[in-house]
Amino acid sequence: MSSNSFPGVSPLRHKVGHFLQRSSVQRSLLTLILINAVILGLETSVAVMQAVGPSLLMLDKIILAIFVVEISLRIYVHRLAFFKDGWSIFDFIVVGIALVPASGPFAVLRALRVLRVLRVLTFVPSMRKIVGALIKSLNGMLSIAMVLALIYYVAAVMVTKLFGEAFPDWFGSLGASLYTLFQIMTLESWSMGIARPVIAEFPYAWAFFVPFILIATFTMLNLFIAVIVNAVQSMHDEEHQQEHDAEQATQQQLLLQMQQLQQELQMLRSELKKPTAE
Amino acid sequence: MSSNSFPGVSPLRHKVGHFLQRSSVQRSLLTLILINAVILGLETSVAVMQAVGPSLLMLDKIILAIFVVEISLRIYVHRLAFFKDGWSIFDFIVVGIALVPASGPFAVLRALRVLRVLRVLTFVPSMRKIVGALIKSLNGMLSIAMVLALIYYVAAVMVTKLFGEAFPDWFGSLGASLYTLFQIMTLESWSMGIARPVIAEFPYAWAFFVPFILIATFTMLNLFIAVIVNAVQSMHDEEHQQEHDAEQATQQQLLLQMQQLQQELQMLRSELKKPTAE
Amino acid sequence: MSSNSFPGVSPLRHKVGHFLQRSSVQRSLLTLILINAVILGLETSVAVMQAVGPSLLMLDKIILAIFVVEISLRIYVHRLAFFKDGWSIFDFIVVGIALVPASGPFAVLRALRVLRVLRVLTFVPSMRKIVGALIKSLNGMLSIAMVLALIYYVAAVMVTKLFGEAFPDWFGSLGASLYTLFQIMTLESWSMGIARPVIAEFPYAWAFFVPFILIATFTMLNLFIAVIVNAVQSMHDEEHQQEHDAEQATQQQLLLQMQQLQQELQMLRSELKKPTAE
Amino acid sequence: MSSNSFPGVSPLRHKVGHFLQRSSVQRSLLTLILINAVILGLETSVAVMQAVGPSLLMLDKIILAIFVVEISLRIYVHRLAFFKDGWSIFDFIVVGIALVPASGPFAVLRALRVLRVLRVLTFVPSMRKIVGALIKSLNGMLSIAMVLALIYYVAAVMVTKLFGEAFPDWFGSLGASLYTLFQIMTLESWSMGIARPVIAEFPYAWAFFVPFILIATFTMLNLFIAVIVNAVQSMHDEEHQQEHDAEQATQQQLLLQMQQLQQELQMLRSELKKPTAE
Repeated sequence: MSSNSFPGVSPLRHKVGHFLQRSSVQRSLLTLILINAVILGLETSVAVMQAVGPSLLMLDKIILAIFVVEISLRIYVHRLAFFKDGWSIFDFIVVGIALVPASGPFAVLRALRVLRVLRVLTFVPSMRKIVGALIKSLNGMLSIAMVLALIYYVAAVMVTKLFGEAFPDWFGSLGASLYTLFQIMTLESWSMGIARPVIAEFPYAWAFFVPFILIATFTMLNLFIAVIVNAVQSMHDEEHQQEHDAEQATQQQLLLQMQQLQQELQMLRSELKKPTAE
Repeated sequence: MSSNSFPGVSPLRHKVGHFLQRSSVQRSLLTLILINAVILGLETSVAVMQAVGPSLLMLDKIILAIFVVEISLRIYVHRLAFFKDGWSIFDFIVVGIALVPASGPFAVLRALRVLRVLRVLTFVPSMRKIVGALIKSLNGMLSIAMVLALIYYVAAVMVTKLFGEAFPDWFGSLGASLYTLFQIMTLESWSMGIARPVIAEFPYAWAFFVPFILIATFTMLNLFIAVIVNAVQSMHDEEHQQEHDAEQATQQQLLLQMQQLQQELQMLRSELKKPTAE
Repeated sequence: MSSNSFPGVSPLRHKVGHFLQRSSVQRSLLTLILINAVILGLETSVAVMQAVGPSLLMLDKIILAIFVVEISLRIYVHRLAFFKDGWSIFDFIVVGIALVPASGPFAVLRALRVLRVLRVLTFVPSMRKIVGALIKSLNGMLSIAMVLALIYYVAAVMVTKLFGEAFPDWFGSLGASLYTLFQIMTLESWSMGIARPVIAEFPYAWAFFVPFILIATFTMLNLFIAVIVNAVQSMHDEEHQQEHDAEQATQQQLLLQMQQLQQELQMLRSELKKPTAE
Repeated sequence: MSSNSFPGVSPLRHKVGHFLQRSSVQRSLLTLILINAVILGLETSVAVMQAVGPSLLMLDKIILAIFVVEISLRIYVHRLAFFKDGWSIFDFIVVGIALVPASGPFAVLRALRVLRVLRVLTFVPSMRKIVGALIKSLNGMLSIAMVLALIYYVAAVMVTKLFGEAFPDWFGSLGASLYTLFQIMTLESWSMGIARPVIAEFPYAWAFFVPFILIATFTMLNLFIAVIVNAVQSMHDEEHQQEHDAEQATQQQLLLQMQQLQQELQMLRSELKKPTAE
C-alpha cells in the first residue's frame, strides 16, 4: 500500500495498483468496513435478526466477498512484498478468519469475524499513526516488562507450591496461579476474595501477598513512567531541535560576521602598512 | 455575555445589556444560585421538608422565576447571538429543564432540576476557565479515544456472540456487553465477579479477558499520557517562549552592534583611503 | 520555635526559649515521641497490657506530662505568637486532646490520643518540609477541586431524588449519597455492588453512573495532572534559572566586550582624524 | 564479578577468576538458570511429575550443584570482597536457601527455592541496570514513604482502639489493622467489604475512612510523582548537559574571536601611533 510506483511490472498490475490506491476506492472500502461494523452489531440482536436476518447475512457475505477480492488484488499487485507490511498481514488475517468454516471445534472463530472491523485502523491514517505510536512505545517498556514477567513467573511457581493443594481453584496449577496473580496485580478482590481466605489457612501468607503487591505495582508504575518519560522526551527532542537549530543559526551568523570583521580589520591593517612602506 | 457594546441597537436593549453585565447583578445572581443549591440540598431531607417544605418550594420557584427573567432578558439583548455562546446554551438548557412539566414519563426531569446549580461554573471566571481547559484537553485525546472506542465496540460484539447465551445478564445484548466491558475496564470485580464464572463455563475465556484488560488499560494509559504531555507541553511552550524571546532579543542586540562595528570599520577604511588618494 | 532572638523580653523567657531550641532538647523530645509511639502501639495488645499494662500507662502519663510542660513553656516564651505558627497549633491540639477527660460521649477521644505521635512531623525537618510541600501542592489543585466538589454535590442531590426511596441505605439522604458517590469515584464495587442492583430497578440508571464515572475520573485525573505539572514546573524553573543566569552572564560578557571594541574603534578613528586635521 | 584484575593473588585464583568471567561461562550459567526455571515450573504439574518426576528432580539437583560450585569458586576468588557486592550476596542467599533441609518448620523454604530463577537478573546486564534503577528510584521516595508510614501507623493504632473489639478479624490487633488499612489503601472492597459494616455499628466511622483514603491516596500520589519527576529530571539533566556544553562551546568560540579582534585592533592602534611618533 505504501509503494507508489511499480517499476518493471506488467501494465495490468500497474493499473490495478493505482486503482486500489485511488482515494475514492480507499474511501469506499472504509465506508464498507463501517457498514460491516453496523451489520455485525445488529446481528447480535435477536429481534433484528428475526426481522431482517437473511438480508443482513447476505449483505455481510457481499462485503466479505469485496474484501476478499481487494486483498487478492493487493497480493496480485505486491506479490511477496505484501507479506512484509505489518498492516497488510493484519488485513490478510482478519479477512482470512472469516473464510475458515466455523463449525465444530472452530465455532469460536465465528465470533472472531468481527475483528474485520479493526481494519478501520488500517484505513484511517490518524488511527494508523496512533497504533504505530502505541506499538513503538512498547519498545521502551520491554526490559522492565521482562523483569516484571520474571518476578511474576517466580511468584506463580512459589504460590503453586505453597497454596496449590489447599486452594486448587486459585493456585492449583501454574496457569491458575498466573491468572490469580494477574488478578491480584490489578488489585481486584485481592484481599477479601483471595488473600484473607488464604491467610485464614496459612497465617503468614500476608508475607507473600503484601510484598508481591508492593513490588508488582511499583514495577508496573515504573513501566508506566518509562512510557511517560519517553513521550515527554520525544515531544521535547522535537521542539528542542527546532529551537536549537534556530539558536545555532543565529550563532553561526554571529560567527560569520565576526570573521568578516576580522578580515576587514586585516585588510585595513595591510592597507595601512602599505603606505608606510612606500 | 461577552459583547461589551451593542452598536446600532435600541437604547432599551443597550440599557438592559449593561444592567445584566453589572458586577453587582452578576454577584447577586451567583448568590441566588448558591442559595438555590442549598435549598435543593435541603429538599432531599424528609425532616426539613415536613418542617419548612412549602416555604422552600416557594423560594425555589421565586429563584427559578428570576433565572427565567434573566435568561429572557439576555435573549432579548443578544437575540440569536445568544445561541452561539456555549455557556449561554448551557444556562438556557439547565433553566429550561425546570420548566418542563415533570410528570408521567418525564418525572425523571424533576431530579435534573438540580443541574441548575452547575450555573456556578458560568458565573465564576476561574471555574469557567478550568472547565474550558478540561474540554480543550479532550481534543488531544480524540484520536486515541476513537481507537479505544473501536477496540471496545469490536470486543463487545465478540463477547455478545461468545458468552451472550450463557450469561444473558452480562453479555445478553450489545448494550449489556458494552456496560460489562466498561465495568471490566475500570477493573471492578472483573475477575471474581465476571471472568471466573465465565471461565468456569468456557475454560479458554481468560484468553479474551486478560488481553482485553492489558490492551484497554494500556490504551487508556496512553490516553492519560496524552493529556499529561499536552499539559506539560503547553506549560513549557509558554515559559520557553518568554525565555526564547529574551534570548533572541540579546542576540539581536549582539548582531546589531556587530553591524554597527562593521559600518564603523568601513567608514574608517574609506576615511583612511581618501587622504591617500588626495 | 522559629524566632531565634527575643529582644526586650525578661532574661528568664530568653533563657527558657534558648533551652527549648537546644538540639539536645529537641532530640530528647523526638526520642520521647518515638517511645510514646511504641507504648501506644503496645497498649493495643491485650497480652502486653495484662503483663505490663500499669507501667505502660504510667510511662505514657509521664511522657504526656513532659509534653504539657514543653508546650506550656513554649507558650510562656512566645506568648500569642505561639498561635500564629501552624506547627505550634498542631502540637497544641494533639497534646490538648489527651487532656480532655475521655469518658461518656468523648470516649472516642481516647483513640485520638495517638495523634500525638504525628508530632514527629514537627520535629524532623525533612518530614516537615515534605508535609509543607504536600499542603502547598493542594493550592494548585484548589480550583479543579472546587469544580469536582460542585459536580459531586449536584450528582448527590440528583441520586437522592432519583434512587433515594428505592435504595435508602445507599441514597436515602444527602449524606448517604455523598458517601456512596465517593465510593463509586474510588471505583470500589461500583458496578456489581451498586450500579447493577440500581439498574435492575431503574433500567436507565446506567445513563447516570457511566457518565458520572467518566466525568469524575477525568476531573480527578486532571487534578493529579495539575500536581504533576506543578512539580515538574517548579523543578524546571529552579534548574532553568541557574542555566539562564549562566547564559545571561556569558552574553553580558559578549555585549561588554563588543562595547569595548566599539569604543576602541572610535578612539582609533578620533586619533586618526586628529593628525589629518593638523 | 566486577573486578577485572587480581593483583598480587596466587596464579590459581587469578585463573579461576578469569574463567568465571568468560562470556561463554556466563552464557552457560544463564542457560542453566533458564533451564532450571522451566524445570521448577514443570515440577508444579502433577501429570509431569508422575511421568518424569525423578529425572526432573535429578536435573534440578545437578544444576543446583553447579551453582554451589560456581558460588564457592567466586568466594574463593574474591574472598571477603564477595560479600561487599549486593548482587553476590543476592546470589549467595537464593542458592543457599536450596541447601537448608526443608523439613518440619522450614518446609516453606522448599517453595522459596524458585527464587534461584531471579539470578537471571544478575546475569542479564540490561535487567541488572533496570533493577538498579528501580532500587535507586526508591531513594527519592524515602522521606515521603516515611511520612506515609507514620500516618499509616497512627491510623492503625487508632482503628485498633476504636473498632478492635467490635471487628476483631479486621482490627483485632495492630497487625490485623495494618493489613486491613493496607487493603483499604489499595481501595480493594474498602467500602462494601469494610467501611459499610463498620459504619452500621459506628455511624461516624465514615469520618475516619474517607479522610484516611483521601490522605493516603494523595500521599501515595505524591510518592509516585516524586518518582516521575526524578525520572524526567535525570533524563533532562543528561540531555541538557550536552546541549549546554555545545552552547557553551560556541559562546567560548565567540568570546575568543572577540578577544582576537580586540588584540588585533590594539596592535593596529599601536602600529598607527608609532609612525606618528616618528
